[in-house]
Amino acid sequence: MTETAIRELLERVAAGKTTASAAMRDLRELPFADLGFVKIDNHRSLRRGVPEVVFGEGKTAAQIIAIGKRVASSNLIVTRLDAKKAAIVKKGLHGMTYYPEARIGAAIKGMPPLTGHGEVMIISAGTSDIPVAEEAALCAEFFGNRVTRLYDVGVAGIHRLTANLETVRRASVLIVVAGMEGALPSVVAGLLDKPVVAVPTSVGYGTALGGITALFGMLNSCASGITVVNIDNGFGAALAATLINRVGLARDGA
Amino acid sequence: MTETAIRELLERVAAGKTTASAAMRDLRELPFADLGFVKIDNHRSLRRGVPEVVFGEGKTAAQIIAIGKRVASSNLIVTRLDAKKAAIVKKGLHGMTYYPEARIGAAIKGMPPLTGHGEVMIISAGTSDIPVAEEAALCAEFFGNRVTRLYDVGVAGIHRLTANLETVRRASVLIVVAGMEGALPSVVAGLLDKPVVAVPTSVGYGTALGGITALFGMLNSCASGITVVNIDNGFGAALAATLINRVGLARDGA
Amino acid sequence: MTETAIRELLERVAAGKTTASAAMRDLRELPFADLGFVKIDNHRSLRRGVPEVVFGEGKTAAQIIAIGKRVASSNLIVTRLDAKKAAIVKKGLHGMTYYPEARIGAAIKGMPPLTGHGEVMIISAGTSDIPVAEEAALCAEFFGNRVTRLYDVGVAGIHRLTANLETVRRASVLIVVAGMEGALPSVVAGLLDKPVVAVPTSVGYGTALGGITALFGMLNSCASGITVVNIDNGFGAALAATLINRVGLARDGA
Amino acid sequence: MTETAIRELLERVAAGKTTASAAMRDLRELPFADLGFVKIDNHRSLRRGVPEVVFGEGKTAAQIIAIGKRVASSNLIVTRLDAKKAAIVKKGLHGMTYYPEARIGAAIKGMPPLTGHGEVMIISAGTSDIPVAEEAALCAEFFGNRVTRLYDVGVAGIHRLTANLETVRRASVLIVVAGMEGALPSVVAGLLDKPVVAVPTSVGYGTALGGITALFGMLNSCASGITVVNIDNGFGAALAATLINRVGLARDGA
Amino acid sequence: MTETAIRELLERVAAGKTTASAAMRDLRELPFADLGFVKIDNHRSLRRGVPEVVFGEGKTAAQIIAIGKRVASSNLIVTRLDAKKAAIVKKGLHGMTYYPEARIGAAIKGMPPLTGHGEVMIISAGTSDIPVAEEAALCAEFFGNRVTRLYDVGVAGIHRLTANLETVRRASVLIVVAGMEGALPSVVAGLLDKPVVAVPTSVGYGTALGGITALFGMLNSCASGITVVNIDNGFGAALAATLINRVGLARDGA
Amino acid sequence: MTETAIRELLERVAAGKTTASAAMRDLRELPFADLGFVKIDNHRSLRRGVPEVVFGEGKTAAQIIAIGKRVASSNLIVTRLDAKKAAIVKKGLHGMTYYPEARIGAAIKGMPPLTGHGEVMIISAGTSDIPVAEEAALCAEFFGNRVTRLYDVGVAGIHRLTANLETVRRASVLIVVAGMEGALPSVVAGLLDKPVVAVPTSVGYGTALGGITALFGMLNSCASGITVVNIDNGFGAALAATLINRVGLARDGA
Amino acid sequence: MTETAIRELLERVAAGKTTASAAMRDLRELPFADLGFVKIDNHRSLRRGVPEVVFGEGKTAAQIIAIGKRVASSNLIVTRLDAKKAAIVKKGLHGMTYYPEARIGAAIKGMPPLTGHGEVMIISAGTSDIPVAEEAALCAEFFGNRVTRLYDVGVAGIHRLTANLETVRRASVLIVVAGMEGALPSVVAGLLDKPVVAVPTSVGYGTALGGITALFGMLNSCASGITVVNIDNGFGAALAATLINRVGLARDGA
Amino acid sequence: MTETAIRELLERVAAGKTTASAAMRDLRELPFADLGFVKIDNHRSLRRGVPEVVFGEGKTAAQIIAIGKRVASSNLIVTRLDAKKAAIVKKGLHGMTYYPEARIGAAIKGMPPLTGHGEVMIISAGTSDIPVAEEAALCAEFFGNRVTRLYDVGVAGIHRLTANLETVRRASVLIVVAGMEGALPSVVAGLLDKPVVAVPTSVGYGTALGGITALFGMLNSCASGITVVNIDNGFGAALAATLINRVGLARDGA
Repeated sequence: MTETAIRELLERVAAGKTTASAAMRDLRELPFADLGFVKIDNHRSLRRGVPEVVFGEGKTAAQIIAIGKRVASSNLIVTRLDAKKAAIVKKGLHGMTYYPEARIGAAIKGMPPLTGHGEVMIISAGTSDIPVAEEAALCAEFFGNRVTRLYDVGVAGIHRLTANLETVRRASVLIVVAGMEGALPSVVAGLLDKPVVAVPTSVGYGTALGGITALFGMLNSCASGITVVNIDNGFGAALAATLINRVGLARDGA
Repeated sequence: MTETAIRELLERVAAGKTTASAAMRDLRELPFADLGFVKIDNHRSLRRGVPEVVFGEGKTAAQIIAIGKRVASSNLIVTRLDAKKAAIVKKGLHGMTYYPEARIGAAIKGMPPLTGHGEVMIISAGTSDIPVAEEAALCAEFFGNRVTRLYDVGVAGIHRLTANLETVRRASVLIVVAGMEGALPSVVAGLLDKPVVAVPTSVGYGTALGGITALFGMLNSCASGITVVNIDNGFGAALAATLINRVGLARDGA
Repeated sequence: MTETAIRELLERVAAGKTTASAAMRDLRELPFADLGFVKIDNHRSLRRGVPEVVFGEGKTAAQIIAIGKRVASSNLIVTRLDAKKAAIVKKGLHGMTYYPEARIGAAIKGMPPLTGHGEVMIISAGTSDIPVAEEAALCAEFFGNRVTRLYDVGVAGIHRLTANLETVRRASVLIVVAGMEGALPSVVAGLLDKPVVAVPTSVGYGTALGGITALFGMLNSCASGITVVNIDNGFGAALAATLINRVGLARDGA
Repeated sequence: MTETAIRELLERVAAGKTTASAAMRDLRELPFADLGFVKIDNHRSLRRGVPEVVFGEGKTAAQIIAIGKRVASSNLIVTRLDAKKAAIVKKGLHGMTYYPEARIGAAIKGMPPLTGHGEVMIISAGTSDIPVAEEAALCAEFFGNRVTRLYDVGVAGIHRLTANLETVRRASVLIVVAGMEGALPSVVAGLLDKPVVAVPTSVGYGTALGGITALFGMLNSCASGITVVNIDNGFGAALAATLINRVGLARDGA
Repeated sequence: MTETAIRELLERVAAGKTTASAAMRDLRELPFADLGFVKIDNHRSLRRGVPEVVFGEGKTAAQIIAIGKRVASSNLIVTRLDAKKAAIVKKGLHGMTYYPEARIGAAIKGMPPLTGHGEVMIISAGTSDIPVAEEAALCAEFFGNRVTRLYDVGVAGIHRLTANLETVRRASVLIVVAGMEGALPSVVAGLLDKPVVAVPTSVGYGTALGGITALFGMLNSCASGITVVNIDNGFGAALAATLINRVGLARDGA
Repeated sequence: MTETAIRELLERVAAGKTTASAAMRDLRELPFADLGFVKIDNHRSLRRGVPEVVFGEGKTAAQIIAIGKRVASSNLIVTRLDAKKAAIVKKGLHGMTYYPEARIGAAIKGMPPLTGHGEVMIISAGTSDIPVAEEAALCAEFFGNRVTRLYDVGVAGIHRLTANLETVRRASVLIVVAGMEGALPSVVAGLLDKPVVAVPTSVGYGTALGGITALFGMLNSCASGITVVNIDNGFGAALAATLINRVGLARDGA
Repeated sequence: MTETAIRELLERVAAGKTTASAAMRDLRELPFADLGFVKIDNHRSLRRGVPEVVFGEGKTAAQIIAIGKRVASSNLIVTRLDAKKAAIVKKGLHGMTYYPEARIGAAIKGMPPLTGHGEVMIISAGTSDIPVAEEAALCAEFFGNRVTRLYDVGVAGIHRLTANLETVRRASVLIVVAGMEGALPSVVAGLLDKPVVAVPTSVGYGTALGGITALFGMLNSCASGITVVNIDNGFGAALAATLINRVGLARDGA
Repeated sequence: MTETAIRELLERVAAGKTTASAAMRDLRELPFADLGFVKIDNHRSLRRGVPEVVFGEGKTAAQIIAIGKRVASSNLIVTRLDAKKAAIVKKGLHGMTYYPEARIGAAIKGMPPLTGHGEVMIISAGTSDIPVAEEAALCAEFFGNRVTRLYDVGVAGIHRLTANLETVRRASVLIVVAGMEGALPSVVAGLLDKPVVAVPTSVGYGTALGGITALFGMLNSCASGITVVNIDNGFGAALAATLINRVGLARDGA
């Protein structure tokens, strides 16, 4: 195990098979990289070839550019980036594309290879939920998933859900985005036996409480098997769906 | 599948093998029982051989016995069942075993075959979180998963987490149960690239707000990839983990 | 009506049939008792032959008996009456029947004639919601409605809803009782064009928040046309449904 | 009805008038389009001749125009539409009139015939509640009701309520709009035996909590018979009142 | 008084001096206008010579001018009136003075005579609380009280409170305005045996919760005898203080 | 007064009548005991002859007896004292009478002389509000006020309010006690120009939120002039009403 | 630094100055004990000779005994231990003393030496706050501090605070315990320039919200310099005060 | 000290060196200015040479200039001062420097001498937390502490924390600033035995609730010894840390 690894390393040093310097270099990695030091290298395998993700809200364009330059060698996604800030950031970070609907700026030097068991499907309820759904969809694509979108499946459009039932059932994981009462994840989870990651949105007014009602409704869904992320957190849902889509796959071949 | 069933029915009518009336009677059932009508037959494939789950809290022993008899042919799990009520229910439902730590009563006529990519690991923070963790663990076992437990991984016991890192990393999915500030899922998610289903518990006092603080802390975790279920909902976490553990597996061979 | 009464009084004064003093005494009463002074004689026409309703919770058996004796001449319903208190009250108030499931004690000297356009249907989600549903059902009956019950229409029983669609559609008004995420009223309202009075219940745990989540979910339902009453308020829903069921009917012939 | 349709289809198959394949195609549509599949065709009869309703807030002018063009054949109401957005939308959707006080844009090709037992009366408390009251009033008119308005019935104007008591009592249903403490629905419900749909508004400050206090006050009203919709939801109240106003009327003749 | 009026009316009918019809018309008005019908003529005696008060927030300048013209004969106070709107209103309502610190516009045709037992003292904690304190002070003056101000009695200025203890103790009623933790009313109430009307303000950040913390702190003050009004409600405090200052005074001589 | 005391002390020092040391000892006491040091001697004049008030809830019988003996020379009121604890306390504190409806234990050696401009009237809404109303009533009596009670003025009993309007109007101050939506204080304040101290109670269920809804409703009352105390705080209302009832009266002759 | 330490260790192994086994033992300690692995050995120096602290609430007597036996070699404190459970635990854990007022069970094999700059003073407001204050006081003593108590410094007892001002000022750190409005920490912090750790308690009713109001009041105190711990968390305050009392002292000599 | 001053004054009176009148005048000032009267002279010793601190938010530039001129002789810090207002204030207050990142304006006539046992270290989690961290850092410097900064220690940067562990451990007190789930203070407190003052920030979205979630997470931290200040309150943390850093130091030599 880890202790075994360290012991072997020490024995190799004692046996003169490795130098203290080389062992130091290994150990230096070990405590942080392998001992599981908290958060030190979060989502290691994901990061091989996938973008750094920066939360753009509450950061100035200058700060985002500075961070962007620091991670210049890898891909970069900036979420919650409004159009105005994006215009400035684009000038400072070459190669960045802005996706206004998803409020995402992305500098992708090469899309990661497709991984996972199957498709990640993004389903959203209303027109106003699309920004969050698109944040999830784009991130899931940048993380190496095959992504299908099924938007506007609200009161006027649920026939699009039922009309696409075969496609829906083919997906490996579903991200369901909804505001107001947040009932759509229950409907979807009732139609199939797949993991459903629910994303409450802040869409609504009055007792919608900025998404708290949708969140609590989803947590109390009688269609068990649903799990939930923070309000408007499309990125987090994409990351969770990516991990779910890779369950049981060898890490290297992933 | 369902459509196939309907098509066959229609062909039997066309072929004169069944009457329109009889088909009508079947169809009348069909659309609701098999077409995936909302919530009508939630978690179909799961149910093949797995227990019915009844939420015991707020139901009288008599009500639980009545429900139990109705589903007598399949396995039955009663969650949130206190010892006193369990004693009565056991008299009315033969073959029921009571698990006091998990507050579960179960009448299992035969364990389902093991399915899924790998192990579901249940990690819990404190001694007081064990009832919820055990609810998750037992349910996950009854749903056909190989389950590993790692309890009491709080301040005094986190070495048990690091000492078992290899085992932890071998799991396919992790259910992490914690109250108070609810930080444990972040720690675990920081150690690996696996789906983490976080279960906030109502353990704590004052500003713990009966689990709301743990829930909100988990939803705001900077270790993305975590998804969350309702406070104390061990059963829901087990069901979600089961679905995640089966991602990409053929339904029938699952 | 009231104005007629006053006009008649004035004419009797003008005609010398009554003195100004006597009229004054009458009028002193009139403005408050008959002119519709706020809350003074709430639901007048309903009360012709229908019970007084007393909220039993937080009142001692002795207080309930005292109130019961004061309204001895008319019918009496005591809601939220637990079995223990009911046993005492029954001794003090002759002719009272106790309905344990609805937690209602009722001394009905004669059922009111059936009124309204059609049936009031009570639909409930889970076994734990039945006490609230029965409070609504019994009250609606005591208020002179034809009542149909459709209980236990949750995950395992929604086929009972769809199997009874014709009956459901025949109802004039629907009272839909549900806890947890409170999604059932949306489902019902989506099936027909009838007024739906939704009753959130305190059934659930964690983020169910004692019924607040169900309430807020119902208020945010995308199936518009739903109106809502207080948590667990079966009686209030029955009264609202009664008024709705009588819309457009002549008051006297009602 | 729907069942009749299916039965006829089956009989046509049995009679060889249609093939199993064609029937399959029809049936595939049927369950979702006509069986009352959840939310699929919400408020069918209402929609005959009445407008589509789009919630304008949180949608861009472009999105609203796109939706408007999709439903071009029927009438269209856009609620929560501010003046600025309205100006753009009007250019994209011909025939739209903007009602600034109600914040409604409407493209009505022909008013629906008047239906219902009687008048829907809209009563509001203060000057600041008028936008919500007008949203309710206009929607109720567009839905085919005869509508009466009684505004500004607060501290300084309650004589307008009492002075119009006969008119008030003549109404079939009342929509009462109030912010702050939300007491007006209680006052109105105390004056008559008619269904009262209460609309809390976000008018007020401090402990008004954006309408939550008015909402909770209305839900706790001792003048039972009141039902409530979401904060500022004039449209929802209009829809509920329309359904109530049509109780017991034949659907086709409605 | 009112009863006297009715009695006289009845006697005039009995004496044939008026017809039943005419009396009916008068009576129809009477019960609502003079019998003290709820809210109908709130604060009658106060109004003799004192201003109408209009809440300016959420009303357009046009609406305020319209209301102002309707009550043109009496004095007028508009509270929560920002400078921009005030500039417009002043053009429409002649004789209006704007008090920017109190955010009050007032058209006072003649100050009411001084009434009450003694002075109303307004004490405020911080610089940011002054707008609310000035709203209270100006209103109290317009309502006919002798008013003393003692502002900025926070951390740096409490010596102003103690240095003016004699003056403070001379006051009949005290209005104490404070945000943040809202402790000042406790301090003041601890210094004397006079009624203290506490006004929580929305001053503060974070857990100040827009004044809720100050409000709840005041309600839980261990210095009993304090009563509280809504957050930022300087006007309400002034009205309450006016009524308190007149306790026991003959109504007419008030 | 206090300053006078200090001045006299200084003059006695200057005159050699006391030493600097003795003066120091006196002064050391003075600033805290007499200068009105925060809360040091709260409600001085009230206390002349009126009871000490102890909050009984959360204290053991032994603690209450100990406190009671410490203040043995003066009158004593223990509020929130349940019957069981009262039985024990009565044995330890001679001369104590227990008032079960008000949950008050009182050892009164002599009632204080009647003071104040007039009567303090206690009005309550429902039967369940009586404990709080009685706490207010008894305390107000023990504090030297003439007290009138008008209970059970809810839906079924508001005629008792209007029938007693003359008496109600004669009161100097009104304490209005109500739970649920808390509308009664508005009704009462609308009927007269007297200070109204509103007491929200924890009576109610669901969205009554343990009295928060009543409290917030009262704070948002459009019948201005109402002030509010903490939920269920009958004692606090009595103390505030006592201070209001004495406004403008000479302290010594009070 | 740490890396230096590891490098030196490795070099000692390479140089044969230490064996791999010994180095392993050292390293095994290092990553967890010195690299700062999260929570692994929280409060190391404190623990030298000071008790293990177990939170007793929500644990069964059996669980507490089991934990107690596991840490048998060191001192043990069990907080939140009710008398009934304590009686059982005492039988299972020899040498345990129960402190009923503090609800603490302690098995102390030897008090730690006194450390810190000076005294930790515990000040509490009311009689009902004593259990929390005593939890803080006992814990502080068991952690090696000199502790002074000053209880019951509320309305009736603040002279005890001022009369002991010299003693209060002598303290190094102050723990101030208060419920209700939580104003006492402000008063104390206003009197001196010492760190004040404020402990809100759940004492109070209504808007005290189980301690949230006291907590938020303390966080908004205008007497800056106050820091706060969780509601009723006497133990946490004692631990914080201990760390503060040792600031700048050499760890070993501490 | 203060008592000494009073004693000397009394002796001067006794000795005839001053008159009773003059002494009265002095004393009148004394009790409030020097006796530590609540909040009157908060943080006396701190203020010797350290700035006055003004909360800039909610104050106009004119008000800030006026306050600034009043305290012209001493140093001045204005917190929460946005750039726009700062530009105006700088013109009115000569010698003021604006620190945009910390949103602080400071007119420092001479830095106070360094005091305290050691360094105050400011650690912050994310880029968005820097304004609050800088407010704490600058204030701590202006209050006479040696300050070290360690920013951006989040997911991507925790190696900066571990890489600087020696420095971190050298600090006397730590101020840890974090938003979202607020877990960083737990991590830091787990690494050492020093007082940690945690500052929750309003950084985050959805269930971050403007900092409430971070605050409650910190209060429930299982790493005891943490104390907390209000959301975004960098200044308050600096003041608390200053007091902690001086524990046990002689006041005059401080």
